[in-house]
Amino acid sequence: MSSSDNTKLWGGRFTGAVDPVMMQYNESLTFDRVFYSQDIHGSIAYARANTHTGILTQHEFSEIERGLKQVQKEWETNTFEVRPEVDEDIHTANERRLGEVIGKEIAGKLHTGRSRNDQVATDMRLWLRDQLDKLEGYLVDFLRVIAARAEKEIEAVMPGYTHLQRAQPIRWSHWMLMYGSFFTSDLQRIREVRARVNRCPLGAGALAGNPFNIDCEAMAKELCFDGRIMNSLAGVADRDFVVETMQWGSMLMMHLADAYSTGSSLMPQKKNPDSLELLRGKSGRVFGQMAGLMMSVKGIPSTYNKDLQESVEPMLDHVKTVGDSLQIATGVLSTLAIRPENMLKALTPDMLATDLADYLVRKGVPFRETHHISGQVVALAEKVGKPMDKLSLEQLQGVDKRFEKNVMEVFDYQKSVEMRSAKGGTSKSAVMEQIEAVKKALAGGR
Amino acid sequence: MSSSDNTKLWGGRFTGAVDPVMMQYNESLTFDRVFYSQDIHGSIAYARANTHTGILTQHEFSEIERGLKQVQKEWETNTFEVRPEVDEDIHTANERRLGEVIGKEIAGKLHTGRSRNDQVATDMRLWLRDQLDKLEGYLVDFLRVIAARAEKEIEAVMPGYTHLQRAQPIRWSHWMLMYGSFFTSDLQRIREVRARVNRCPLGAGALAGNPFNIDCEAMAKELCFDGRIMNSLAGVADRDFVVETMQWGSMLMMHLADAYSTGSSLMPQKKNPDSLELLRGKSGRVFGQMAGLMMSVKGIPSTYNKDLQESVEPMLDHVKTVGDSLQIATGVLSTLAIRPENMLKALTPDMLATDLADYLVRKGVPFRETHHISGQVVALAEKVGKPMDKLSLEQLQGVDKRFEKNVMEVFDYQKSVEMRSAKGGTSKSAVMEQIEAVKKALAGGR
Amino acid sequence: MSSSDNTKLWGGRFTGAVDPVMMQYNESLTFDRVFYSQDIHGSIAYARANTHTGILTQHEFSEIERGLKQVQKEWETNTFEVRPEVDEDIHTANERRLGEVIGKEIAGKLHTGRSRNDQVATDMRLWLRDQLDKLEGYLVDFLRVIAARAEKEIEAVMPGYTHLQRAQPIRWSHWMLMYGSFFTSDLQRIREVRARVNRCPLGAGALAGNPFNIDCEAMAKELCFDGRIMNSLAGVADRDFVVETMQWGSMLMMHLADAYSTGSSLMPQKKNPDSLELLRGKSGRVFGQMAGLMMSVKGIPSTYNKDLQESVEPMLDHVKTVGDSLQIATGVLSTLAIRPENMLKALTPDMLATDLADYLVRKGVPFRETHHISGQVVALAEKVGKPMDKLSLEQLQGVDKRFEKNVMEVFDYQKSVEMRSAKGGTSKSAVMEQIEAVKKALAGGR
Amino acid sequence: MSSSDNTKLWGGRFTGAVDPVMMQYNESLTFDRVFYSQDIHGSIAYARANTHTGILTQHEFSEIERGLKQVQKEWETNTFEVRPEVDEDIHTANERRLGEVIGKEIAGKLHTGRSRNDQVATDMRLWLRDQLDKLEGYLVDFLRVIAARAEKEIEAVMPGYTHLQRAQPIRWSHWMLMYGSFFTSDLQRIREVRARVNRCPLGAGALAGNPFNIDCEAMAKELCFDGRIMNSLAGVADRDFVVETMQWGSMLMMHLADAYSTGSSLMPQKKNPDSLELLRGKSGRVFGQMAGLMMSVKGIPSTYNKDLQESVEPMLDHVKTVGDSLQIATGVLSTLAIRPENMLKALTPDMLATDLADYLVRKGVPFRETHHISGQVVALAEKVGKPMDKLSLEQLQGVDKRFEKNVMEVFDYQKSVEMRSAKGGTSKSAVMEQIEAVKKALAGGR
Repeated sequence: MSSSDNTKLWGGRFTGAVDPVMMQYNESLTFDRVFYSQDIHGSIAYARANTHTGILTQHEFSEIERGLKQVQKEWETNTFEVRPEVDEDIHTANERRLGEVIGKEIAGKLHTGRSRNDQVATDMRLWLRDQLDKLEGYLVDFLRVIAARAEKEIEAVMPGYTHLQRAQPIRWSHWMLMYGSFFTSDLQRIREVRARVNRCPLGAGALAGNPFNIDCEAMAKELCFDGRIMNSLAGVADRDFVVETMQWGSMLMMHLADAYSTGSSLMPQKKNPDSLELLRGKSGRVFGQMAGLMMSVKGIPSTYNKDLQESVEPMLDHVKTVGDSLQIATGVLSTLAIRPENMLKALTPDMLATDLADYLVRKGVPFRETHHISGQVVALAEKVGKPMDKLSLEQLQGVDKRFEKNVMEVFDYQKSVEMRSAKGGTSKSAVMEQIEAVKKALAGGR
Repeated sequence: MSSSDNTKLWGGRFTGAVDPVMMQYNESLTFDRVFYSQDIHGSIAYARANTHTGILTQHEFSEIERGLKQVQKEWETNTFEVRPEVDEDIHTANERRLGEVIGKEIAGKLHTGRSRNDQVATDMRLWLRDQLDKLEGYLVDFLRVIAARAEKEIEAVMPGYTHLQRAQPIRWSHWMLMYGSFFTSDLQRIREVRARVNRCPLGAGALAGNPFNIDCEAMAKELCFDGRIMNSLAGVADRDFVVETMQWGSMLMMHLADAYSTGSSLMPQKKNPDSLELLRGKSGRVFGQMAGLMMSVKGIPSTYNKDLQESVEPMLDHVKTVGDSLQIATGVLSTLAIRPENMLKALTPDMLATDLADYLVRKGVPFRETHHISGQVVALAEKVGKPMDKLSLEQLQGVDKRFEKNVMEVFDYQKSVEMRSAKGGTSKSAVMEQIEAVKKALAGGR
Repeated sequence: MSSSDNTKLWGGRFTGAVDPVMMQYNESLTFDRVFYSQDIHGSIAYARANTHTGILTQHEFSEIERGLKQVQKEWETNTFEVRPEVDEDIHTANERRLGEVIGKEIAGKLHTGRSRNDQVATDMRLWLRDQLDKLEGYLVDFLRVIAARAEKEIEAVMPGYTHLQRAQPIRWSHWMLMYGSFFTSDLQRIREVRARVNRCPLGAGALAGNPFNIDCEAMAKELCFDGRIMNSLAGVADRDFVVETMQWGSMLMMHLADAYSTGSSLMPQKKNPDSLELLRGKSGRVFGQMAGLMMSVKGIPSTYNKDLQESVEPMLDHVKTVGDSLQIATGVLSTLAIRPENMLKALTPDMLATDLADYLVRKGVPFRETHHISGQVVALAEKVGKPMDKLSLEQLQGVDKRFEKNVMEVFDYQKSVEMRSAKGGTSKSAVMEQIEAVKKALAGGR
Repeated sequence: MSSSDNTKLWGGRFTGAVDPVMMQYNESLTFDRVFYSQDIHGSIAYARANTHTGILTQHEFSEIERGLKQVQKEWETNTFEVRPEVDEDIHTANERRLGEVIGKEIAGKLHTGRSRNDQVATDMRLWLRDQLDKLEGYLVDFLRVIAARAEKEIEAVMPGYTHLQRAQPIRWSHWMLMYGSFFTSDLQRIREVRARVNRCPLGAGALAGNPFNIDCEAMAKELCFDGRIMNSLAGVADRDFVVETMQWGSMLMMHLADAYSTGSSLMPQKKNPDSLELLRGKSGRVFGQMAGLMMSVKGIPSTYNKDLQESVEPMLDHVKTVGDSLQIATGVLSTLAIRPENMLKALTPDMLATDLADYLVRKGVPFRETHHISGQVVALAEKVGKPMDKLSLEQLQGVDKRFEKNVMEVFDYQKSVEMRSAKGGTSKSAVMEQIEAVKKALAGGR
């Protein structure tokens, strides 16, 4: 007995009609078709392995391989005809079409011991692995431009900022290499992430594992995976590889956004900076995808739940957005024209206040005292309305007797940057060392 | 002098060639075409107002109106021919086409005193206003189903849960009305949000306001806005109306996700619950859109920055996802078959432990003591392996002398629920009152 | 039979010893003691209502009230002695102490028909309601300063920015009133949020409602609630009121962060802007609290789950952070010294390019054409190395014949701002109207 | 000239009085005192290195070291007297006290060439490095329990779930090892994160590097850093090491939350699961900290901005919360009593539907057909009201002739799990292999 007699439940098993909103809500082929090639390669590897377990004969395998290659070609040539009423996702679409090409008798054996659960995880990992390789390439290109410009334009000196204020003279190359440092870490991270993405879940079945003792290692090898997910339940449940990628991508986009925020105040330009603002705006988009996916997977019981489907679309857009952004940033940096003479003009003597303090430090005055004295000189300069380097020696000595004639040598921007020769600093040698470090990191790839 | 002589800067103003990645990164017509109708109506209202300021003659206005209506028809009949190389967004596309239809001389006057900054804000608000009306309609439908089922099935009694454990008997209607309470608040909120969305920024120009003293009130009225954004800078800078909508949507989706999480443990079903899991998963998607947009707009300097373009795509998907989800939830609830007899079977006497304590409370025993005694009875029942209501009066009196014969009346689920007759409770009268409250809230609309 | 014989499960029911990490993980008194007063007032109202249901005699009520008032005094005078081993939270602490003061016999009756579930919800709502009133007060103070300065300093004219570039002259007051517009919406929102926070859940019991027909309306009235949560399950499960508050607070903090980002480029100051940067940084903190709470509550089954405890600490910090930030922003704005003469100096003739185009518009030239001509004038000025207003009439006519002698009147910043007299614009009358709108919004409170 | 004559600007440089709200908003000693030891060790290493550059004499160094060790002792014995009006943060507090102990003359030399910018970055990295080591230890403990239980209780068989439904029999150990897989990845990740955290920024100065050619390598070595931040600007600007830690922590907490969500439906218990719900709730808290910090740092211009201070408090709480949660999870898992006989009872023959299909697969029937046949058997069993394994051979053959007598062997849960012997599966050998993999990962530490 049921309380509602005219029950018309959702889903084809229950009623003749399917709600169109539901159908569209549920289907994924509109976006997971992007995995067509991965799906087909995964199926071929799976079928080959099933030949060894005796599930398929050699003939059956050949037929399946032939059929799948034809399906692949149809996708490639844009002649694959989707049948919306039955092709719920790329997996069912490919298998349906395979059956039409080679007959259902053999095609119906392909899925033996497999499940859409391990199949979709395999497709996603294969696809993402390849995309990460592309992204790594874009990142390497970007770092190459940084290193090359930093080397070529090492002479340019400009203000370094803290708190949006000009603080100390630094080399323009030193500034670029700050991003070199950030993006080198991004490079290190993507390589680590890739290693975890590129693990094979195929053979996990619905959840409990493959019952025909399939050779998981062989499949992993054929598909160029670096290894396997150790546990079949994890194989189907795990979307951490997407989350990790997005954590990586959203941190990288933060770096791009910050670079623009900083750069635009350093190098204001009249030309419409629209695209760079968009780049900054997209840091939010990719962050939102990461935050959203973590929300989607939070608290859902293992192993496979349909919630996991919500990892696919954000992943596709995330990877595209990060890739485009990296290319654009590379384009911007490689075509940006700097004006070293304007950079120099932006330097002012008060940015040498620390150097003035250091002058006294070298005479044995405690830093805290020199800091105070230097502050008095700045105040004096303001008061008399002169730049600090135009104060007379008498005026300086009026503040502190220990200033001697050679104090005037302090007011030299080139000398100031060259003093910072300790590792990581802004002197020429220190900057060259940083360039080498970036180059070395690039070479450290797979 | 420039450090890079072969400068090839981004953008057509600088070089002949445009980078295709950049072009595609930058353009928005692929998604903002959805505003074509709003853009056209906004332009007609703007042109009409400019007739009163003398910017346009009556003839020019008629031409513009005629032309725009033709453009509208082209979009509607899917015959609008996009020219990707020049149609960067819906605004430029519509104006370009208008020029082709009525000639550039008159078409070139349309944009006088206006800017894409106030134009896009107007389009988005008009579009979103209409969408919120739809969403409100879906929500009202959903609440109607809740109220109707709650009324019809008020007899069904089932376990109420805390901590995933069965705690006390409640009416099934009472449970549904918990969601009635949540969604009624959602309804109240969407009405408040709509009032802030539906304010007119047209006339703000690029940022400083309209220099031809255009009649802003008249435009707002023609476009059915509820009022104006008071300040022109705010008019172009404000995307809070999108953030607010997403805060609303992500809270509503939390409610749907929770309803599924709770409902699925209450009413486990063998049939594939895929779509409902997807609904739960989508709570992450919409949350991510909200979080992402807040990230995009964080810290950007007012007024208009291209970063704001990142509000559009998430808004479109957000509204669609929430709308679909509401319709699906309504479909599920309206077709769900409950089994009152199974609900009853799920009740167990230990869920009446509180009622047993209350029995003693009515005899003047302090609650803290009755609570302790009731716990002892539960322990005794466990120990002797009997349900609590099968313990003999002697056994009960062995725990506490104050139990009398009428204690057995406690073990009655119907009585238990009817005891909770205070406002908000699970008795029939209290539940009926809640149904009335929901109905009243529905009627309280605009 | 159990697989692990030496079972030592968590919790006192199972073993003698309690893990100290667990104990500290679990307890909430270190932070929920802040609700002591709300907890006590809620208990008094509850006890009074139970006098009418016959649960308590008048004498018992008097004793409870006397005892609770003493407990209240102990908290106020910092003499309440916490007993960490038994006082898990503020509710148990207060009741434990009440028992010591008036005896367990009567104290043990206080909790009759109540549960910590409805008790904590009541405490939180009462506390938050009062805090929102404070926050509303701070916001009103801030808006008052905005309105007052805007009125007093209406003469000051400065550059308006888009894309970090100086675009058009605007009034400094107009700029402040952009924030006036944002914060007026924040004011409207907090009033709406307060109405939903200030609803009474007391009487909901553990979940199913009160079994002694307690007068819920009377309790709500005594505690100055605006009404009730309509459904007892919702009464204990709902933490939306905290989420809503945080959505409100994180949007408001975005506005403060943006104001600083914009203001610091408008009004660079040498003085350490540390505190304002901190204010910008705290926009992340409050956003994180909102995002975190939504994550905590996502997907948890109704009704009460201990997960909900995670709403308390973030709420406390959120409210404090927003309140402090508003006060600081008010302090900054009320003491900030502007330099109108420097603002004027920051204006450059190219910011009047739009006005130049408008000049031709008034002569009947289509806007698109005037826009183009105006661009040519800008280019000419750049080429000849003169500001636009120093070009000769001949030079201007070389670009377009329609420029006449009176074109020079265009190059007047005061005139430019006064032209923007349409509603919301930057003319004096339009700005005054905006000031009135802000003032009216302030008066519109409860 | 200033527009507001009675200017009372924030900060001591401007007025005599300091606003107490501002002061409290700004100070950090209440929380960064936790770094006292790191701050002191960093200062000693810095001073030692400055002895080699000639900034300090050996005597001065000895005095500084002696003084700092005394300060350290004062913190350790809780006798350090904070002076709120001057001790803004741990760095100033320590240096102020050092001056009192050894005299300002020498103490005033400590900070030469250093800045709070590189100092705080050093302190945070040292502290976090040590905390990550503790967290790694907790994680290793947890994985050890998983491996040990998985080995000991390998015989227990229970239902594996998808979509909250019982799907296939699996080993309880297999289920635990799913989390073994997740947490092994967490272990790998924390080791990678630690390597990036444990890099030395000391010597970066305010931003441009150290002007006295300090030996950065020596300092890094003394402080047990693994290397250096390559660029001084990055050294002071980078808070990615905190973001990364939080990305790690929030993913780990997701795993704990999911484990509870899954486990609680697998192993429902009457005992109060409060603490585990809290653990689930805290997954939101740590996620919010990560999201909040990303928001705080988004779009701020490099290098150091006070916004970065907002990384400290969330980091402290994050690390504590994750550490406590791991310990609690370990405690729960190590004391949890399973009931293998109840697990077995939870298995039902319909969970062997896949095995039934596999039976036919082995006879050469295409999987798609066997899947269909198996579904018909399930339907038949439902219809005749018998469990599937109680159907007669005749009934089975009524569905498909190819069922033979030995089909009955399919209905054996032990056999079912043992069939899944491919890598990652639920057979005993496959599970043992997974246990070895976890053990190997543990050994793979530093």
